Amino acid sequence: MSIATPYLLFLGDAADPLAAKVAQGVKDWRPENAVGQLRLEGCNADMGLPEMTLAEGREAGAKTLVIGVANRGGVISKAWIEVLLDALAADYDIAAGLHNHLNDIPELVEAAAKHGQALHDVRVPSGDFPIGNGAARPGKRILAVGTDCSCGKMYTTLAMERDMRARGFDADFRATGQTGILITGGGVPLDAVVADFMAGAVEQLTPGADPDHYDLIEGQGSLFHPSFSGVTMALIHGGRPDYLVLCHEPTRTHLRGLPHYPVPSLAELEDLALRTARIVNPDVRVLGCAINTAALPEAQANDYLAKTADQAGLPAVDPFRHGTDALIDALPR
Amino acid sequence: MSIATPYLLFLGDAADPLAAKVAQGVKDWRPENAVGQLRLEGCNADMGLPEMTLAEGREAGAKTLVIGVANRGGVISKAWIEVLLDALAADYDIAAGLHNHLNDIPELVEAAAKHGQALHDVRVPSGDFPIGNGAARPGKRILAVGTDCSCGKMYTTLAMERDMRARGFDADFRATGQTGILITGGGVPLDAVVADFMAGAVEQLTPGADPDHYDLIEGQGSLFHPSFSGVTMALIHGGRPDYLVLCHEPTRTHLRGLPHYPVPSLAELEDLALRTARIVNPDVRVLGCAINTAALPEAQANDYLAKTADQAGLPAVDPFRHGTDALIDALPR
Repeated sequence: MSIATPYLLFLGDAADPLAAKVAQGVKDWRPENAVGQLRLEGCNADMGLPEMTLAEGREAGAKTLVIGVANRGGVISKAWIEVLLDALAADYDIAAGLHNHLNDIPELVEAAAKHGQALHDVRVPSGDFPIGNGAARPGKRILAVGTDCSCGKMYTTLAMERDMRARGFDADFRATGQTGILITGGGVPLDAVVADFMAGAVEQLTPGADPDHYDLIEGQGSLFHPSFSGVTMALIHGGRPDYLVLCHEPTRTHLRGLPHYPVPSLAELEDLALRTARIVNPDVRVLGCAINTAALPEAQANDYLAKTADQAGLPAVDPFRHGTDALIDALPR
Repeated sequence: MSIATPYLLFLGDAADPLAAKVAQGVKDWRPENAVGQLRLEGCNADMGLPEMTLAEGREAGAKTLVIGVANRGGVISKAWIEVLLDALAADYDIAAGLHNHLNDIPELVEAAAKHGQALHDVRVPSGDFPIGNGAARPGKRILAVGTDCSCGKMYTTLAMERDMRARGFDADFRATGQTGILITGGGVPLDAVVADFMAGAVEQLTPGADPDHYDLIEGQGSLFHPSFSGVTMALIHGGRPDYLVLCHEPTRTHLRGLPHYPVPSLAELEDLALRTARIVNPDVRVLGCAINTAALPEAQANDYLAKTADQAGLPAVDPFRHGTDALIDALPR
């Protein structure tokens, strides 16, 4: 999936800033992708970008209107539809990660065809995927794996991309979920791919490259999360990582959505992730731990990181508080 | 997915008996599902069932015409279409596991609608699947896992169902692939399910049951096969097995389709399968080994089984040569 950049970010009538997670991600990680923002009356989110009409956005170079917010109650309102129809008429593509698909709304499909524009539903995989073959390929791959879902894997790999590029590495984030795809304009929504093609889709996303190139592969789910462990396994075997980063949220009391499942330890994650990754790459090793300490005060966070580094014998950082330099330092030069 | 039984088996113009794998499976494992066979001129397969016209099949009670053969060159010929249209007019449902789908052939879709009959493409999942929740549920589950794809997992679980029922156990085979679905009339084509719903589909297929009931879950792929390991992982976590049976083909020199991958040992399979299954059920244990010794002469096969049982400290049988009693004996009574 490939979305034309740059974007005009549509914030709609976002109830609160949290609803604008996608727009915030674009602003944080691909500010060059966002020429401005378009808000409707009653919008309580603000990315601090220039306010633009559709016409102003086009003049500023925007090619795609990205819906940067969750829609209230899962319904695409009449007010939204009007904006989207106007955008298609103004030669915008439209991209969204909504539960309801743009391509299921006949008047949008009709208008897109009429104006020759694309409707990207990033929850829906596009293109054909091969069966994975597990073959070695040139270039390096770093995969984030987690003790749980939603514990900082996307943030960690985006931060590593930023920090590696700043240090002169040739490094690309590879999105495997809808938010990452909208932020960066490309990727594969792995959780929506048909089972037989999961590993092949990841191989296609992380193809052979220059020996000094790094793919930073966004992780999904967890080997320990029974709802999604198959997706994680396909990422490990399709991604054929050279390096793993272990992601963890230390205050969580149980797996996300599963109160009857404890969160495994970092040591358990290290053991099982290495065990499964070695099936495709015997030389894989762990770079370090990325800990999401947002819920801890600074002193307690630093204590936790020091203790973790000591116990694991590995670098341990909070990518948000400290960046990822300590992980990058662990790469061979 | 649920297919009305019994069947009339359509053998078409099968090039050779091997092309009739599905029909052979019905004959071997669900003979009560097959009232007869319907063959075209030039058919080189014969199940030894009564030859019947469509009308005779209906008189004998057949509700579904099952396409029991692979079609030559992947094309559904004009001669086949005529038979299928006649079958729909004679109030048969039709079921097939062909690469080309019945539901993609407009004249069949139209005729099925006209006569109120169903077209079952068993490669296409039907129904909605939940997200898996990993919860414990009553009843017992036995899952076949393998060192590779296509090493005898379906055969092993079908043979265990037969042998357990003969000994008075309440046991049901649960099909997770197209051949098993056509043989038994129900199941989930797991390799065609969308990634996020794999584990939930397996949970739905193996729901809570009487404490003394056994589900015999057909395995898919292998934790060690990088193309399909994610599907296997979802089976282990969605199936939440109480018992594992380790399946292996001892003469294979590399993983199916992957010449660069060696076949793991039974000890490696035991270790990783238990490690991953314990995440959902700490009490899971291995019943024994099911070895497909078809490629070995009898004496060598028996030597291999004796050596395997000795090394693993577990029963080791060839389900085809010896049945599965030694595995069933390992269940608590």
